[in-house]
Amino acid sequence: MLITDLRSDTVTKPTPEMKEYMFAAIVGDDVYQEDPTVNALEAKAAAMFGLEAGLFCPSGTMTNQIAIKAHTEPLTEVICDQTAHIYQYEGGGIAFNSSASVALVQGERGKMKPAQVEYYIRPLNNIHFPETKLVALENTCNKGGGSFYTLNEIAAIAEVCQRHNLALHLDGARVFNALVAANENPVDYGKYFDSISICISKGLGAPVGSVLLGSREFISRSRRIRKVLGGGMRQAGYLAAACNYALDNHVERLQEDHRKAKAFEEILLQSNYVESVLPVETNIVIFKLNSMYTDAAFVQALANENIRASSFGPQMIRFVTHLDITDEMMNHVIQVLKSLNKQAVTV
Amino acid sequence: MLITDLRSDTVTKPTPEMKEYMFAAIVGDDVYQEDPTVNALEAKAAAMFGLEAGLFCPSGTMTNQIAIKAHTEPLTEVICDQTAHIYQYEGGGIAFNSSASVALVQGERGKMKPAQVEYYIRPLNNIHFPETKLVALENTCNKGGGSFYTLNEIAAIAEVCQRHNLALHLDGARVFNALVAANENPVDYGKYFDSISICISKGLGAPVGSVLLGSREFISRSRRIRKVLGGGMRQAGYLAAACNYALDNHVERLQEDHRKAKAFEEILLQSNYVESVLPVETNIVIFKLNSMYTDAAFVQALANENIRASSFGPQMIRFVTHLDITDEMMNHVIQVLKSLNKQAVTV
Amino acid sequence: MLITDLRSDTVTKPTPEMKEYMFAAIVGDDVYQEDPTVNALEAKAAAMFGLEAGLFCPSGTMTNQIAIKAHTEPLTEVICDQTAHIYQYEGGGIAFNSSASVALVQGERGKMKPAQVEYYIRPLNNIHFPETKLVALENTCNKGGGSFYTLNEIAAIAEVCQRHNLALHLDGARVFNALVAANENPVDYGKYFDSISICISKGLGAPVGSVLLGSREFISRSRRIRKVLGGGMRQAGYLAAACNYALDNHVERLQEDHRKAKAFEEILLQSNYVESVLPVETNIVIFKLNSMYTDAAFVQALANENIRASSFGPQMIRFVTHLDITDEMMNHVIQVLKSLNKQAVTV
Amino acid sequence: MLITDLRSDTVTKPTPEMKEYMFAAIVGDDVYQEDPTVNALEAKAAAMFGLEAGLFCPSGTMTNQIAIKAHTEPLTEVICDQTAHIYQYEGGGIAFNSSASVALVQGERGKMKPAQVEYYIRPLNNIHFPETKLVALENTCNKGGGSFYTLNEIAAIAEVCQRHNLALHLDGARVFNALVAANENPVDYGKYFDSISICISKGLGAPVGSVLLGSREFISRSRRIRKVLGGGMRQAGYLAAACNYALDNHVERLQEDHRKAKAFEEILLQSNYVESVLPVETNIVIFKLNSMYTDAAFVQALANENIRASSFGPQMIRFVTHLDITDEMMNHVIQVLKSLNKQAVTV
Repeated sequence: MLITDLRSDTVTKPTPEMKEYMFAAIVGDDVYQEDPTVNALEAKAAAMFGLEAGLFCPSGTMTNQIAIKAHTEPLTEVICDQTAHIYQYEGGGIAFNSSASVALVQGERGKMKPAQVEYYIRPLNNIHFPETKLVALENTCNKGGGSFYTLNEIAAIAEVCQRHNLALHLDGARVFNALVAANENPVDYGKYFDSISICISKGLGAPVGSVLLGSREFISRSRRIRKVLGGGMRQAGYLAAACNYALDNHVERLQEDHRKAKAFEEILLQSNYVESVLPVETNIVIFKLNSMYTDAAFVQALANENIRASSFGPQMIRFVTHLDITDEMMNHVIQVLKSLNKQAVTV
Repeated sequence: MLITDLRSDTVTKPTPEMKEYMFAAIVGDDVYQEDPTVNALEAKAAAMFGLEAGLFCPSGTMTNQIAIKAHTEPLTEVICDQTAHIYQYEGGGIAFNSSASVALVQGERGKMKPAQVEYYIRPLNNIHFPETKLVALENTCNKGGGSFYTLNEIAAIAEVCQRHNLALHLDGARVFNALVAANENPVDYGKYFDSISICISKGLGAPVGSVLLGSREFISRSRRIRKVLGGGMRQAGYLAAACNYALDNHVERLQEDHRKAKAFEEILLQSNYVESVLPVETNIVIFKLNSMYTDAAFVQALANENIRASSFGPQMIRFVTHLDITDEMMNHVIQVLKSLNKQAVTV
Repeated sequence: MLITDLRSDTVTKPTPEMKEYMFAAIVGDDVYQEDPTVNALEAKAAAMFGLEAGLFCPSGTMTNQIAIKAHTEPLTEVICDQTAHIYQYEGGGIAFNSSASVALVQGERGKMKPAQVEYYIRPLNNIHFPETKLVALENTCNKGGGSFYTLNEIAAIAEVCQRHNLALHLDGARVFNALVAANENPVDYGKYFDSISICISKGLGAPVGSVLLGSREFISRSRRIRKVLGGGMRQAGYLAAACNYALDNHVERLQEDHRKAKAFEEILLQSNYVESVLPVETNIVIFKLNSMYTDAAFVQALANENIRASSFGPQMIRFVTHLDITDEMMNHVIQVLKSLNKQAVTV
Repeated sequence: MLITDLRSDTVTKPTPEMKEYMFAAIVGDDVYQEDPTVNALEAKAAAMFGLEAGLFCPSGTMTNQIAIKAHTEPLTEVICDQTAHIYQYEGGGIAFNSSASVALVQGERGKMKPAQVEYYIRPLNNIHFPETKLVALENTCNKGGGSFYTLNEIAAIAEVCQRHNLALHLDGARVFNALVAANENPVDYGKYFDSISICISKGLGAPVGSVLLGSREFISRSRRIRKVLGGGMRQAGYLAAACNYALDNHVERLQEDHRKAKAFEEILLQSNYVESVLPVETNIVIFKLNSMYTDAAFVQALANENIRASSFGPQMIRFVTHLDITDEMMNHVIQVLKSLNKQAVTV
């Protein structure tokens, strides 16, 4: 029987059309910058987001970590939300790769307010403090349950950064979900961010790959950092081709994933084992169980029905909808969610 | 006219008796571990706190940073309060010297609860997270306004650490203030902490020096780290002699500093320019001004009367009492604090 | 007209059979360790080299850098030849990723003698020195012109390492060339090395990928490091499939590349613009030009005939033979090399 | 009986006059830059060497390590002689504190030629290499047996640095020995070096302290690094006073130490247990024993006569002359050196 995998949108596999496109790719040695498919992807993504240049990398962790390193030095500090992926889920990479400090903002669902960012900027010329250099946003916010910043909110934070001469980076692991939900144009992002990491192997469905975007000079420095981290690949064009296909074909359909996430939210709000659901804004559903189930027991109950989900902390469950979740799967999950409800009642 | 310096207890100068003692010290080359006065200080301080060995260093920042480095590796994490000196005032040293991450607890006046510490311990065997390795307390808490942990509170956090196999470090920049205020014996600290940094150039009045304490093996590793940071001094016995004198003669008298801090608190609570005062527990007085003065204006008003104090953030002022604050100075300051009050009324 | 690319064996493109195999791969999310093709590659490579486990990475720089990080800590030192790729061509990664020192041996054509390795081991328990932790060999030696260690030579160095409790790592970027040239069995390598990096996108012709091999515990630590460097890929099985194919089909044929390199050596030794040729042992030909050509002029002269080669320092040229060099190309290059000879005479 | 300690010139103890001067010092809190004696030392030393500003530190390792950090970033490289103190004896600090790479020149007695320095400069804009940023000289050269660069030799290396836009740092642990031996004026050094570390607790006889010199902007950056390393001391004026005294009174007398070292050289050249002596240029005598003694046995034989010397590698012995070596001690050592000679003959 087929597995319905709601653990993450990273689990998607290429569609037949995407695979076709991958294996038709013309490739070259990208360490020599001679892979035409990689070069095309980098140019396409940069243009899409209104920035000058791009750098293809094997993961979104790498694009983020390169950007942090390129914007900072040791003795400097990064401001981000306390739930930010760069701080929470990248293995301690800010300290490891950049020897930079962090100032952790207590935002709301992963979103910082401009005044909060400003509060954490260190006074200048005081040897007791690291020097604030970089502000990093995540859009959508994973740990915030898929919440997103609008362009106006971004502009307000960018204004703080400009006033204090700070760089602004976007971890755009799920930026296409934000853009589709807000009905905004990526090209406007380039006005506000000094660097953007976009991930194409999440909701967009490519097997591997993220692209780091920025000015030509920034990408040139980033290429050096990619080398030292070991991220320089040779005939990477097969992977880049899938990304090109995804950018052309899989952005708009994210609405479908959002609709499915909303459908889960509706069912969960009616379930007597659910204490609360973070209001669904994109393709992530995070909910809290009441005492009827522990998170481990609930994950197991779903697994018994060939459904995979993630425990997201004590009593917390995360579902992520994506390209590989069919309507049949949706029906199956909804039925199971209802049945768990009934079981709970009878206990 | 004499300056009354309330900015910090670091500004104290040796008493004539302490200087006499310094001058009489027998010294040697401490890099070869042949300075008898340094050796005596290290042994005395270790015995005092119930630990095996000590290492004399030029500052408390160095003793803390060495301890953090000795307990951690890159890819690991330190748990401390968000106001901790090691995170706030050591130049971003955790990231710089140890490439370690931080988990920042939102304690009360710098003090963490055992459950808060436990909450921030990372799950094991998950490559997304750094590995939690070290918990660090500060006692007294500088940014907490001189608040302190009792031995019982320390024991409860130590229990969490032992259960999770974490090291426990004490930043004891003002540990003698805590011990005197709680009427506790330093020897009991050795049961709970894997390492302790004590500073002897704050309230105890030595010109320079901190001692890092721990097991013989820990201090041996720490000596290597002190070398690479450049903290190995040659005939350091002159400085160590002052520390020896201070440990013998200046601990009990900290009560006097606490009494003086209480006197300031009393006056400030009666002053109409004060919004609130953090309840005084030791030798630090932190208070918030209402709109009658900005912190800069208030510091200037005191300076006009030959009194120095620190701005401690917007509208915040810090006073620290110490060995060099005489009764005459106290009277002068109190008079000035009252006069500022009157002036404010007349405005 | 077709380009004959002798710059490096990294430029190879998949054969139709390899591409077929890639296209047919069954994939999964490798960050969850669920990509069956990646898992199969890791197991196959580990078994081949007599080690327990493997880790698939996007580049040989990453496998090397992960190994160095996993074997060392800050305050420790790596011994390698002064020409080693890990020191010379990985962007300064030993210092960047591991904060480890290097001791540089002046070997012969990149090969160190056991006594040289032993000479550079630091005395124990001396705080002035970093602690020696790791010895790293490169086989074949790139900058040594494709020279190689035999198993007996490796065993003698391994004996020094064991006696001094040092780890031994192999940068096996071109280890298959060494194995084929020495007619040795990779399974014997596992007795001597604590870790081995094998690269499958050089002579073996896969588009992307290296595998790090070692004990289960070592690979488990390495997986954490790969994460923080950003080397964790999702559906990486397409790349791994090409590697599996290459291990099964492209090892023995390296003899062909060696034969071609020998053919170049023979011609070059007869050319009046050549001062000397490093005796060819595998697929690399490094030669020195006399004053008839600068390296830049020589590279340009070849480029004019659609042949690409690398300048390898002042007056130095490097050719690398590989899977994509056909017999027609060989004939063309040889003719051009002869013609350059004639031209030089007539000048 | 008195010990004659020839292990290092770091073992000197303050003369009575120096001690008097120390304890008459007026001090303040140097972290607030308010210690007048420290400020005077920094200004005096800077003026002496023709540079703008100075920073007092607890050791020469710290002044060197701060300078390296201030001149480099991760992904950059330092060129120095393979015997340089910064590489050999500072615990691996270049990698630890700066995450910078090293290029190691094989100079003669620790001295590099301009062409050697130029050879090791990395090509620009090549992501495979770290970027060369700093050249560091040591004068005199400790491991070179007290050999020294003249101003002309320094100028020639400075010219290479300027042409390639590299910073030039001097580890002047024993720069006063070089200046006295070459009869040169320190003020000329400021024309060639971007930063200079001078040590005052070696031949000059102060108990503790080195001063880092450079431009105002460089020292301002260095102060921040000193803080994070834990090198900020409070009432450091007692130590600085001894340094002031030493700069005023102990420079010229180094000639006496050089004369004594020459006397040892003469005796050693006549001793039948000596294989060779590095020609003595300043206050360091390094000699090689023939098979009559191992270095350990020789050090023990001296120890039996209350003389301390350092083993300096297999069969190697180092003597260092200094302020505390009296004429009586000289006579005693010379007698012992002769007697060892006789003993060796009779064996």
